[in-house]
Formats: sequence, structure tokens, C-alpha cells
Amino acid sequence: MDIVIIGGVASGAKAAAKVKRLLPHANVKIYTDDTHVSYSSCGLPYYIQGNFNDYTALLVRSPEEFKASGIDVFLNSKVEKILPEQNDILVLGQDKSELVHYDKLIIATGASPICPKIAGIDDFENIFTVRKIEDGIKIREKMLKSKNAVIIGGGYIGIELLEAFSRNGVYTRLFEKSPQIMPALDLEMSEAVKKRLNSIENKNFELYTDVMISEFLGKDGILTGVKTSDGKEFYCEMAVICAGVKPNIELAHNAGIKIGDTGAIWVNKLMRTSAENIFACGDCAEKTHIVSGKKVWIPLGSTANKEGRCAAMNVAGVYCEFEGVLGSMVTRCLNTTIAMTGLTEKEAQEIGFKPVSVIVNKYDKVAYMPDTGEITLKVVADKITGLLLGAQAVGSIGADKRVNTVTSGLIGHLTVEEFSKNDLTYSPAYSPTIDPLLNAMQILCNKTARSC
Amino acid sequence: MDIVIIGGVASGAKAAAKVKRLLPHANVKIYTDDTHVSYSSCGLPYYIQGNFNDYTALLVRSPEEFKASGIDVFLNSKVEKILPEQNDILVLGQDKSELVHYDKLIIATGASPICPKIAGIDDFENIFTVRKIEDGIKIREKMLKSKNAVIIGGGYIGIELLEAFSRNGVYTRLFEKSPQIMPALDLEMSEAVKKRLNSIENKNFELYTDVMISEFLGKDGILTGVKTSDGKEFYCEMAVICAGVKPNIELAHNAGIKIGDTGAIWVNKLMRTSAENIFACGDCAEKTHIVSGKKVWIPLGSTANKEGRCAAMNVAGVYCEFEGVLGSMVTRCLNTTIAMTGLTEKEAQEIGFKPVSVIVNKYDKVAYMPDTGEITLKVVADKITGLLLGAQAVGSIGADKRVNTVTSGLIGHLTVEEFSKNDLTYSPAYSPTIDPLLNAMQILCNKTARSC
Repeated sequence: MDIVIIGGVASGAKAAAKVKRLLPHANVKIYTDDTHVSYSSCGLPYYIQGNFNDYTALLVRSPEEFKASGIDVFLNSKVEKILPEQNDILVLGQDKSELVHYDKLIIATGASPICPKIAGIDDFENIFTVRKIEDGIKIREKMLKSKNAVIIGGGYIGIELLEAFSRNGVYTRLFEKSPQIMPALDLEMSEAVKKRLNSIENKNFELYTDVMISEFLGKDGILTGVKTSDGKEFYCEMAVICAGVKPNIELAHNAGIKIGDTGAIWVNKLMRTSAENIFACGDCAEKTHIVSGKKVWIPLGSTANKEGRCAAMNVAGVYCEFEGVLGSMVTRCLNTTIAMTGLTEKEAQEIGFKPVSVIVNKYDKVAYMPDTGEITLKVVADKITGLLLGAQAVGSIGADKRVNTVTSGLIGHLTVEEFSKNDLTYSPAYSPTIDPLLNAMQILCNKTARSC
Repeated sequence: MDIVIIGGVASGAKAAAKVKRLLPHANVKIYTDDTHVSYSSCGLPYYIQGNFNDYTALLVRSPEEFKASGIDVFLNSKVEKILPEQNDILVLGQDKSELVHYDKLIIATGASPICPKIAGIDDFENIFTVRKIEDGIKIREKMLKSKNAVIIGGGYIGIELLEAFSRNGVYTRLFEKSPQIMPALDLEMSEAVKKRLNSIENKNFELYTDVMISEFLGKDGILTGVKTSDGKEFYCEMAVICAGVKPNIELAHNAGIKIGDTGAIWVNKLMRTSAENIFACGDCAEKTHIVSGKKVWIPLGSTANKEGRCAAMNVAGVYCEFEGVLGSMVTRCLNTTIAMTGLTEKEAQEIGFKPVSVIVNKYDKVAYMPDTGEITLKVVADKITGLLLGAQAVGSIGADKRVNTVTSGLIGHLTVEEFSKNDLTYSPAYSPTIDPLLNAMQILCNKTARSC
């Protein structure tokens, strides 16, 4: 049995390893146009920051290790075409194209950075995107020689890089074209992020929202600055574009495989595409949102891993459903943890819920403890049913804990009333006597006219 | 309307404040034999440690603040008797006894330290228990002048004090009579605690299990050491008895109020005792365990708070059910966070479940991140139904997060299969790609023969 996997970063690598364990006699091959396979791209900002100095720490499994377990990895091998009618793919290898047969194919082509059409974008060195190992190496090298940088985009990769640059003493300006950094959050929560970051003493960065970069400036191919949509110019020695990612669907699309409304490859719960014997998983594939039941495209490493495993199981004939995602995420920028799960109020409204919400600002521990931090917590519920819809938390590291506590409530389809009966752990070193989550639920009980 | 509350630390103080808000015209009185009211006794170990230096930080609300909101607090006022047939209590005030009428009575008498019958226990100074503000002040004073201490009992107060003493350079020996420190945990988890603590470099403490103190040694009323059940003698300048607490039920018992099988005051979900117009809440009252449905006695500050609120609401005629507890708790000793929720495997077995369990040892973040810690996580489920029963975690601060994530699963009565679909937050700085909780659930799915 020939099992071919296109792409080998997270879901592809996971799928390969899993399917080989399940079907030891199958021929398992990974084709990727990348120079590396099986690595943690989520770790690139921390490598750039210098949290560790050897980028090979990001490599989960080398081609040699794959080989040792009987999996062939073909690096620098661009797949040019999928030919579903003949169960082949066309691969451009080192020097020539060849047809490779598959019995089962897994598309794990991932996502690529979006490069906005900004004047001068192709004219200068030192304009980067962050996705692959080489990107991280180059950005780090340049950062260590720079005093001024610009980050374009204030999503999570943008703010993770902001932390990296700031901690390395590089004066950084971050420009976000939307009215809020971390556009995935509700506006008030984004404001809470901004307020915390801007409160840092002697900060060596500036945050701009509602500002686009209209032009890259430079000479002799070297970037020297950016021009913004409001006509200002800022000097910089490097710029990183963190303007989001798009799913790599061209191969699938050209092969007539169904693309979903989200723009990513449509798959069912078994990770099957619309084409026979072809599966897709990871950042190139759509997911189902567990709270809304809608198809969404939320590309994250943890999901990619689970989907890779699930695709592999179904390829091997072991039934596996991937239920979907809650959109749970966490990130950090300097003094601020940002975490969310489920639907934002805005999303809930758009989908047709009647959301009610509460925002509480609380200490994360009992106030008399040293290093007590603050958390801004937003919880969203449906007014009609009282069902929990989502939570967002911004603040100290304890923000993360509260959001994960809500994930299980979402999986269990709890109402705010049910959740308000929760018995969370308490100790002065870990939380106030009544946890902020329970404060929030209590208020939501009133807003949904439930007795708690 | 006369509302009388006996006891004013956590649940009593909460009940008083809440009932006065609901019934502004009621006469609300707190009687306590304590010298303080409304304080965080959970914070005493941190005050002793010196995490803050002013003990008044532990006081939530002073008698004057209560007075200002129309609540009378009678300190140093021992209630000698409850007379349910005439709706009075008998109070021994500063100099004379008096009858005080109530329309509704809330018993919030709390719990007291257990003092084991050890030879010499009454003969020496510098033998302490930890419960009240004065205890904390005295222990701290003595600790600051001591080089050697003994702690008797390895439950959470014992190990919190161990941290306090260790951090203050006091060489400390902790003796636990049972085979494990933190006896509330399953044995393997207790071993994990011990292993972590014993791995601390240049540690200035010794942990003894299966060892009892048989005698306090000293002369002229001054403690100079302890003798253990195995005949050894250890020098020390102070000893703290942390051998657990017992509910203060004498008043209720003498008044003919029903005492439950757990030894604490029986209450229904409305916090009503068996006697008309008499409620009980906090550490003196029984609780219902949400997972087992059984009555338990797990005295904790967060529960006391919620029960006080609930009792107050029912006193005021606002219907409130207190569902019960999960037995969730967290504490810390030096490098080790210890958290648990739900049933241990031992408890589950005793109650009649057919528990299966898994223990995973994992990093709490992606291994390449700095300060990555380790977590030992145990999850318990029922083999027949697949229902989650409980979780225990020992390790870095991330242990706390995993346990709280499980609490919501317990409240929602999730099976391991359902929980295994959870979408937990992921970032290298916060967790491995696949969280240890999900690893554990996956294994439990296999053990309960469920497909996840």
C-alpha cells in the first residue's frame, strides 16, 4: 500500500508517523518543497528571541529518524499536481518531474504568509515573513544587528515577535491596519492588551492601530524605512510582515477537490476530502467549530497535530472522528498573557446567537500575595439558552488557566448556571477566594435571568 | 428581624454581609470567641513566610466596617448554648452571660486544630497550632528567632509551613504519621511530591513519613526537642502541630441539631440544619460531593465563602441551592504545586466505582522553552461508564491549570471520550503541542475501551 503525504511540518509529519505505526508494511512517503520536515513553527518567535540558541531544537523528527522508522522524506520536492483519476501525484524533484503513485493521499500543505501589496515589497532586502526555519534564522541574524524594526500586523505572531525584538533591545514599531491589535479578540479585550503593553515602563516599542504601510523605503536594495497610510515615515533596518496566513489550497483546487466557504479544503469529520482516497489535515483544511457547528478556518499547531493523527487512523482503516475546534488559543507578549476559547461576542452575534457578556477586572491571586497580577476576563453566553459560548482573558499568566477551565465547559455544553456551581481550586498563592471566573458566571446568571 | 451568626471568619462574615445587603432592615449580629473577625486564615502560612509583613492584610473587613454597614460584631464572646425551643442563644460576654434572641440563626463555628495526645504537649512553650491570627503572629515571631523547627503533620498546612520555614532559613523536620505526605492524594502522587521536594539542592529540611512524635522534650517549660515513635530524638526550638482539623459541632450537638456521619453538622442543599430557623455553613458543616453524591467533610475557604452566601440568601428568603463540592484544592511547597479535584482512585474504589487511572509524566511546556517544568498528572475514570472521576497533578505551576480544566469536566459529567475532544490552548510558552491532559485522556479512552 502506497501512502503519500504532501507537506511535512505538523499534521503531515504526525500523519506519517501514525500511519506507519498502524500499517507497518505500508510505503509511507512525505513530499515537501520545504528544506526541513517535522518542526515547530510556533516556536520560531522564541528562537528569534533567544529563548534557546540552537534552531535544531525546533525539529521534532529528522528525515533520518523518519527513514529509520521506514518513512521516506523527500525534501525540496515540489508537488506540481494531484491526478485523482489515476491516483498519482506529479513531483518536481531535484532535476526532473516524476509521477508517484498513491493508494491513499494526505494533503497537509499548510498555510503561507499573506503578503500585502505594498509598494516596494519586492525591492529590498530585510523584509521578512515568518513561517519556515530559514525565516527564523534570517530574522534572528538581522535582528541581532539591528536597532530599529517594523512589524506589520498585530495578530499573535506579530506580538510574539514584538516581545522578541523588545527583549533584544530593538526599538520596534508595530502597525496594525485594523482598529485593534489581536483582531481575533473582542474590541474591549484588545484594548486591554494595548493598555497593558503601553503601561510598560521605558518601553522600547510603539503600537499603531488603524494604520497601514503604504510603501517600503530604501535604496540600493536595502530597506531604510516605511511610509504609512497617513503619510508619516519611520526609519527601520528591518521589517517583518505578520499579516496573517492563507491556506495552501492550489494543488487541491486544481485537482477538482472541493474548497469550502472558508477558503480552505473541505473535509468531513474523518478528514476525507471530496475526492476518493484523498484526505486533508492541518492548516490547509477547514475545521468545524464545536460551539457554533459552523465551518471555520482557524489554523493552529495543536489542531494540526490532532487532525494528522485522525487522518492517519482513517487512512489505516481505524475509525476516527475529529469533532472540531473551540478556537482556543494562548499567546504572550511581554507582561501580558492573552487567551481565548469559543466564540467572541462579535462572532456569536454574527452567527445568530443573542449573546450577553460580562467583563471582570480582578486580581489573579489574593491581593496580599507578592506578584499578584491582574486579569481582564470576558465571558460570553447565550441569553436565550444560558449556554456558555466563549471566554477571553488578558493579563497575568493566570489568564491561561481561566480560559482552559472554560474549554471543558464548552465541550460539555454547560450553561452559565451549571458552570457557576464549579468548585475551582483555591489557595492565596493561586487565586482569590472566589475565582474571577465564578464572579463572571454569577453576573451572567443575572443577565440570563438564571438563579445561581 | 433578628439574624444571629455564630462565628465570623469566612462563612460567617460572608453570610452577615450578604444577608444585610438582602435585608437592610434586619438586625444582624456576629458572635465570636475570636479576637478577630473576617480574615483569611488560608493566608497565615504566607504571612509567617514573610510574603507580606503586616498581618492586617489578612483582615477582609474590620468590626468597624461591619458596624458601618449596620452589622454588630461581638468579639471575645463565647456562645455557650443554643436554645432552639426558645430561639435564643446564651452568650458569655465580657463579664456576664446573656440570652440573645434570633429569628434566624447561622452556625458558622468553623473547625479547630486536632491536638494529638503526645506526652508533654501541655508542658512547654513553643508548641503551636495554626488557625487564628494570633497563632500566625506567634509562630512568625518565634520562627524568626529559631534555627530548628519541627512540623507535625504533612497535610497542606504542614507543607505550606515547611515552605515558610525553609525560606526563612530554619532547618525543619516534618513528621507525618501516615505513609505519605499529603495524605489526601493517591500514594503515587504523594511519592511524586516527596521526590520533587527531596530533589531540591542543599535543602534545609527532612521529610519523615510513617513516623509519629511520641514525646515533646524540654526543661523549665521550654521545648528543646521531640522524641519519635522509633525512639530517635531531634533537637528543635519550636514545633507546630498541623495534624488536621475537626469541625466545631459541640454547640449544635448539645442543642440536638443533627450531626452527619462525617462528624460535621448535617445540612440540606439550602444550608438548613435539622432545627427550624437554624442554618449552618463553612467548616462546621457537611458538604455533598458532586461526583459521588455522598456527604463529605472537606473544609476549605472557598467553599465556606459560597456556603455563607447561600445560607444568607435562604435566610433572606431568596432561594439558593448549594450543589456541593468537588474537593478541588491547590497548594504549594517550594518548587512544587499540588492540585486535585474530584475523587482519588482510592476514594473511587471505596465508594464502589470501578476506577481506572493513568499517570503521565510530561513537560508543562514545549521542551525547548526556558524554565520548562515537569508535571505528574493522574486522571481517574470509571471503567464501566467512562465518566471522569477526578484528577491530581504535582509539579510546576502548570499543574494547577490542568486540574482546573478537569473541574469543569466533572461539573459537566463528561466521559473521558468527551473530554478527549477538548481543544486546550497551545503555545510553546504555555503547553506542549498536545497537552498532558489530552495524553492522559487518550490512554484512559483505551483503558475504558472507548474510541478517542
